[in-house]
Amino acid sequence: MKKINKPTSNQLASVVRTLSDAKSLKMVFHVPDHEELMPSNNSLTEIVDLLRKIIFPGYFGNSSLNQENMLYYLGVNIDKVFHILSEQIRRGLCFACNEKTDLSCEACIKNVGEITLKFISGLPHIRHLLSTDVQAAYSGDPAAKGYGEVIFCYPSIRALTNYRIAHELLNLEVPLIPRIITEMAHSETGIDIHPGAEIGEFFMIDHGTGVVIGETCIIGNHVKLYQGVTLGAKSFPVDDDGNLVKGIPRHPIVEDNVIIYAEATILGRVIIGVNSIIGGNVWITKDIPPNSKIVQN
Amino acid sequence: MKKINKPTSNQLASVVRTLSDAKSLKMVFHVPDHEELMPSNNSLTEIVDLLRKIIFPGYFGNSSLNQENMLYYLGVNIDKVFHILSEQIRRGLCFACNEKTDLSCEACIKNVGEITLKFISGLPHIRHLLSTDVQAAYSGDPAAKGYGEVIFCYPSIRALTNYRIAHELLNLEVPLIPRIITEMAHSETGIDIHPGAEIGEFFMIDHGTGVVIGETCIIGNHVKLYQGVTLGAKSFPVDDDGNLVKGIPRHPIVEDNVIIYAEATILGRVIIGVNSIIGGNVWITKDIPPNSKIVQN
Amino acid sequence: MKKINKPTSNQLASVVRTLSDAKSLKMVFHVPDHEELMPSNNSLTEIVDLLRKIIFPGYFGNSSLNQENMLYYLGVNIDKVFHILSEQIRRGLCFACNEKTDLSCEACIKNVGEITLKFISGLPHIRHLLSTDVQAAYSGDPAAKGYGEVIFCYPSIRALTNYRIAHELLNLEVPLIPRIITEMAHSETGIDIHPGAEIGEFFMIDHGTGVVIGETCIIGNHVKLYQGVTLGAKSFPVDDDGNLVKGIPRHPIVEDNVIIYAEATILGRVIIGVNSIIGGNVWITKDIPPNSKIVQN
Amino acid sequence: MKKINKPTSNQLASVVRTLSDAKSLKMVFHVPDHEELMPSNNSLTEIVDLLRKIIFPGYFGNSSLNQENMLYYLGVNIDKVFHILSEQIRRGLCFACNEKTDLSCEACIKNVGEITLKFISGLPHIRHLLSTDVQAAYSGDPAAKGYGEVIFCYPSIRALTNYRIAHELLNLEVPLIPRIITEMAHSETGIDIHPGAEIGEFFMIDHGTGVVIGETCIIGNHVKLYQGVTLGAKSFPVDDDGNLVKGIPRHPIVEDNVIIYAEATILGRVIIGVNSIIGGNVWITKDIPPNSKIVQN
Amino acid sequence: MKKINKPTSNQLASVVRTLSDAKSLKMVFHVPDHEELMPSNNSLTEIVDLLRKIIFPGYFGNSSLNQENMLYYLGVNIDKVFHILSEQIRRGLCFACNEKTDLSCEACIKNVGEITLKFISGLPHIRHLLSTDVQAAYSGDPAAKGYGEVIFCYPSIRALTNYRIAHELLNLEVPLIPRIITEMAHSETGIDIHPGAEIGEFFMIDHGTGVVIGETCIIGNHVKLYQGVTLGAKSFPVDDDGNLVKGIPRHPIVEDNVIIYAEATILGRVIIGVNSIIGGNVWITKDIPPNSKIVQN
Amino acid sequence: MKKINKPTSNQLASVVRTLSDAKSLKMVFHVPDHEELMPSNNSLTEIVDLLRKIIFPGYFGNSSLNQENMLYYLGVNIDKVFHILSEQIRRGLCFACNEKTDLSCEACIKNVGEITLKFISGLPHIRHLLSTDVQAAYSGDPAAKGYGEVIFCYPSIRALTNYRIAHELLNLEVPLIPRIITEMAHSETGIDIHPGAEIGEFFMIDHGTGVVIGETCIIGNHVKLYQGVTLGAKSFPVDDDGNLVKGIPRHPIVEDNVIIYAEATILGRVIIGVNSIIGGNVWITKDIPPNSKIVQN
Repeated sequence: MKKINKPTSNQLASVVRTLSDAKSLKMVFHVPDHEELMPSNNSLTEIVDLLRKIIFPGYFGNSSLNQENMLYYLGVNIDKVFHILSEQIRRGLCFACNEKTDLSCEACIKNVGEITLKFISGLPHIRHLLSTDVQAAYSGDPAAKGYGEVIFCYPSIRALTNYRIAHELLNLEVPLIPRIITEMAHSETGIDIHPGAEIGEFFMIDHGTGVVIGETCIIGNHVKLYQGVTLGAKSFPVDDDGNLVKGIPRHPIVEDNVIIYAEATILGRVIIGVNSIIGGNVWITKDIPPNSKIVQN
Repeated sequence: MKKINKPTSNQLASVVRTLSDAKSLKMVFHVPDHEELMPSNNSLTEIVDLLRKIIFPGYFGNSSLNQENMLYYLGVNIDKVFHILSEQIRRGLCFACNEKTDLSCEACIKNVGEITLKFISGLPHIRHLLSTDVQAAYSGDPAAKGYGEVIFCYPSIRALTNYRIAHELLNLEVPLIPRIITEMAHSETGIDIHPGAEIGEFFMIDHGTGVVIGETCIIGNHVKLYQGVTLGAKSFPVDDDGNLVKGIPRHPIVEDNVIIYAEATILGRVIIGVNSIIGGNVWITKDIPPNSKIVQN
Repeated sequence: MKKINKPTSNQLASVVRTLSDAKSLKMVFHVPDHEELMPSNNSLTEIVDLLRKIIFPGYFGNSSLNQENMLYYLGVNIDKVFHILSEQIRRGLCFACNEKTDLSCEACIKNVGEITLKFISGLPHIRHLLSTDVQAAYSGDPAAKGYGEVIFCYPSIRALTNYRIAHELLNLEVPLIPRIITEMAHSETGIDIHPGAEIGEFFMIDHGTGVVIGETCIIGNHVKLYQGVTLGAKSFPVDDDGNLVKGIPRHPIVEDNVIIYAEATILGRVIIGVNSIIGGNVWITKDIPPNSKIVQN
Repeated sequence: MKKINKPTSNQLASVVRTLSDAKSLKMVFHVPDHEELMPSNNSLTEIVDLLRKIIFPGYFGNSSLNQENMLYYLGVNIDKVFHILSEQIRRGLCFACNEKTDLSCEACIKNVGEITLKFISGLPHIRHLLSTDVQAAYSGDPAAKGYGEVIFCYPSIRALTNYRIAHELLNLEVPLIPRIITEMAHSETGIDIHPGAEIGEFFMIDHGTGVVIGETCIIGNHVKLYQGVTLGAKSFPVDDDGNLVKGIPRHPIVEDNVIIYAEATILGRVIIGVNSIIGGNVWITKDIPPNSKIVQN
Repeated sequence: MKKINKPTSNQLASVVRTLSDAKSLKMVFHVPDHEELMPSNNSLTEIVDLLRKIIFPGYFGNSSLNQENMLYYLGVNIDKVFHILSEQIRRGLCFACNEKTDLSCEACIKNVGEITLKFISGLPHIRHLLSTDVQAAYSGDPAAKGYGEVIFCYPSIRALTNYRIAHELLNLEVPLIPRIITEMAHSETGIDIHPGAEIGEFFMIDHGTGVVIGETCIIGNHVKLYQGVTLGAKSFPVDDDGNLVKGIPRHPIVEDNVIIYAEATILGRVIIGVNSIIGGNVWITKDIPPNSKIVQN
Repeated sequence: MKKINKPTSNQLASVVRTLSDAKSLKMVFHVPDHEELMPSNNSLTEIVDLLRKIIFPGYFGNSSLNQENMLYYLGVNIDKVFHILSEQIRRGLCFACNEKTDLSCEACIKNVGEITLKFISGLPHIRHLLSTDVQAAYSGDPAAKGYGEVIFCYPSIRALTNYRIAHELLNLEVPLIPRIITEMAHSETGIDIHPGAEIGEFFMIDHGTGVVIGETCIIGNHVKLYQGVTLGAKSFPVDDDGNLVKGIPRHPIVEDNVIIYAEATILGRVIIGVNSIIGGNVWITKDIPPNSKIVQN
């Protein structure tokens, strides 16, 4: 039978050599200082799934729960989160250490258990915040048939679950992991919330695809966004060497009860005052006073 | 060897107790009346995969089909759809029953087989509609190399397959399941079509990411949308208690042969008349007469 | 125990017959000339994963690599890519052959090994291009903590990896496969780059959801796009029979150092001159001279 | 490319027809009365794995247990056993019902929950018996390094775990399932214990391959068998129609403290008296008085 | 954190080199002439599972079958067997070709389709033979509760299914594959039947572990064996070079209605005459006349 | 719909409590001193599979190897063995430490890398020994068609591969792991070789089911065993407290060129002299002089 012509071994071996060459490897090769593996996307997916079962028991997970057996299931799921998450946090710390070399190894490991425990202790608060988001989604969407549908189907709840988990981890100074977790939701929902953003209670995103919420955004309570809204940066100050200055406040502050309609773009450290309504497809780069109504001409 | 510090059991146990507390569980805990499990995302994914093999034989599925063995494969796939889908429909009915308590259990079960059979009987019609969508995508996209590429690669065909399946299930009054199915496609393609929308033949969506088609939209034949188009609601009437009135017509009617370019936003129960062309990035909240051409200034 | 009513076999058999009917199968049934299976999405996913491990060693893959064992891992991964990819290229050629019937079978098979080898020989160049994209993303995003975070987390690098692989395969005249590979990235990231587009070095896409880059685009070096940017076609010339003319240049040319902000829409074979800045949400259908700054009113 | 010659569809279709023919299907086709599926080997494997984790916590299962989190893990594993096992018991009852038609459907279902609960209530006793078997294996084998090695590695403990589970299920009159469970162990260990056999405490089987213990055996405490020992039946009385009489006592009674060496064969309802030693490769078909020592010439 | 000391790369590289050395590779390295892969154990397991579903519909496979949908399931399963088995037969032929170099490649491939079709055409006969084995097991074992239990649980039926499949393939001169298939059953059941043995109808093996049936055995109808029975070879004639002469008749002929009890060993080309009964643990190396009864002293 | 009666939570909770009780947990609960997990059967299976690919390249593994790419595959497989095996050795040491408390933790970890490297350095020797076993099996079995069939199909080669690996690990004083590895082969083949046994070159086991080779056996070169042969212990000396004395020589010494036929049982520290032939089903408990021929009467 005729077969595909195979390359001679020389041909492939030559490519192997070129790709192993130090010059080609510059910038694309990760050599960890401590032989630590990169964080595992599979483990982080498992962690988020476990947290979803913990936060919304009965909706996620394969078993029918009642007030009695729930104790067992919550206990096991939290125990598993502790073990899997602490391993991932360790990898995240080691990755950052590798890149920045400003943490001591001893301190690093010592902290992992403590950080993980603090995160787990914050779960009741995360659940509370998400329950307000569920209420906001139900109350604000005429198509929603009940809380259950919102919890089980709505991409915004999925994205906010990941964001609120990631934000808590970032507050505990865990590197890399928070961003991986929000990017998972970004991929699944098209909603891109940086874990650094601060978001209040009763937050709602309708449809969601294309929403971008930048690293230094501050969003109040009872805020509602539609698909395609960008809360982004406008200018990017550079230092004397021409490199971007990282981490300075550069995204909008959105106050309580603001509604922003589809495809609106708001850029820079501007303040959108309380109770304002921003129409669709508008482009805003300056402060908006409270109670304003801005629409496209 | 040094290990991660483990929390004392008391610390985790305390979180477990807090999260098991009835107060914390309010709104986030699903206790089914009849111990029925939630619908399974894995089963619904399998159903959509089976239906894709049934609708487009030879394109999907791992076997080379011919006119003869196709009978066997179609027979098996349809038999499997019956079994897996009827189980999911039962869970959907039970979920709705649980939330609304207005269906009798007896009636519920009795209907499941009948509903599933009606759905399956509608498959030839669904295949016909999708074949018109394939034609529209091929005829309307200069980059399309053939029908096969459209069927196998185009996200719009994937999204429309899920939508047309979900819409049929919604017509049969199956709760929850249709929304889950369209959200699957939303996640995969960025195209968000509510299963309640009515969409005619030869429908085309190009690129697709960010498209939103609301619950009460009515779309004619030979309509073409580009990425980022929103067919949404404008106002949200509330009842005397301040709650949203659910389910009233509030999304656009798009008549035959309309083209709507990228990022256009059309809101409210407006009519876009036949043969109209709506330019990109425009914002429309009123009726557009037939044969209009609307563009951004 | 009460069970779901099953349909009589006649009812299902009747649907099976209808769906097997030649009339219903028109346009939706793929009968390959040579019994060749369709390309496998799983295999193509595996190929992209292998290539990601080859291009960014240490970041992807489960093992800690060093300068010494890397040779083994690169060798195995490249050997696997050769075998799996050549099989998929064969299927792609056979699929095209089936639809177009203008390639000889003999020639087809003979070329597969050669094409695959050429593709593999191009990997160092693909790695180089992607390393410039990583630099561009890091330098252009104040939120980026380091190259590692960009490589491991940024959806734009994922999308560009798939695009640069697919573009190389398209240059080698492999049908269908390139489009499948870019659609995978489209689904994961919301970034839709046609494999036919030409894109220079140091290319950056921020956030990315909703970006569309059409088949005949030409993009220079050091170009930066934000989410929701469309580089699309404006008019669709038809031939004498009213069918679209396929493949003619119809998308923008974007010259070096151009920045295009969120949701901008640029349509047609227009030229955006070097060093220009295009503001968000604008709509452009004509040439923009070099060094321009275009913003929404 | 040359391909394997495919049969014409007629050729395969003809075999399909023959194999679907009622005559060919006689005796080999299972049509359940109530559409109930056959028991699932995968589910039964999962049940035995769960029970092993429950009985020997810390040895099996992927988590490190302590006195505190064990409650959660035992709770979850027992809850899962209840759900999965009750489903399998239902299938077993339905299978028997189908074959024998002497159980009422109503009674059947009503009993399933009760049977499963009784089984679970018996787990502490099963654990106790197995702990005596572990002691016997450790005390009786000079190669055993500790209890842990016996529990984790010894095929006899694996076989006895399955047997003691299956025996309890048989006592609760569950059909078919017990035999499947002992055959799993038979396949894994070469030890064939019929679930109907009665076996006392501190039972030990060394090496084990080829051991056969028949349905009506009665074995006392502190009995030790070596590989290849058969405790079988000798004669098979038939009824007036020439059919075997099923279920009558026909296997040996082995009293306390008996040792039976490798490859010995003991057949029929004979009694091996207390404290007897039976040498290897002997053939016994009559009673052996207490304290005997029987060896091959 | 303290980590496991890693070897220097030199140390591992040295082992890699030694193991790659031609001298070390002698006899243990398989280089196929035609780059054909070895047969796949996974595929052969899948084939046997498919054949079990085809032969005993309703007992194996996950769906409830009826006279109507069975046609679809049989059709699909047989179609799959054709594709997967023909690929494995090709590999088997190529493996033999490689070792013996006495088959022409052209002829080889040409035959694969034909051989596979012949095998499939023989399935009704294999099913018939197995149905007689099921009857024999039920009639001959007082512990058997029904045909269903025998088909679903008895290791002898599993072993005979593999043997009868393998024997048919051997008759069609397929190399290697038959032996792999009987060794699968050997591993699962401890019953070792060489695919070359000839075995009549209504064959029964009770318990089974340790049974050995040699390559040139001939066994009549209604024969019954117990565990540990060996039908083996006695002498091994060598040729002038001192090498074993392969393939000559050297195992027993067992005539109709013979019963052989546990652990009996029968060696050489002897004839056990019709209706004879051979007792347990005996050692026979010469002909036994019809109607004999041989027991251990 | 009628459902299975569920137990009240009290009923299950009561069993959970009983099984969590310290008294019930005595002897069956593994609490590691250092929170180390038990060795993983899955990882050990993976290790043996990797070693099989390393020892017999081209026969096992999914790729077609040649002299060139083999270096890559061997390199990767050996690198993987190092990582996975060192983790399992650590668990084994920790398990033993836990049970015996006579190893220091520091020393333990320090040794793991060294032990694993020594094991890997011994692989060429293990491959050599197995190549002699392959030769012995081919030369000694008239049914063997070639070396390839022996390597790929023969259970004895599978069992000897596991034994020779396990024996080497035992020589390096790795606890528990060696026994797990030989028990894997015991389960698959029915051949039970204790890792402590010493076995020379050109060793052959035909058929194999039921073979037992005890912990302190010493077997010379060119020895051949048939199925069901036991090389076991006869007496079990106890110490003053009545406990078995562990580890003393108590199994046979079998000198070069001995053949032992099926089901023979040899017990105690006896010597079977060179060139002896032991017939089937015999029972031997004393020394046999060189060149003897022992058969059953």
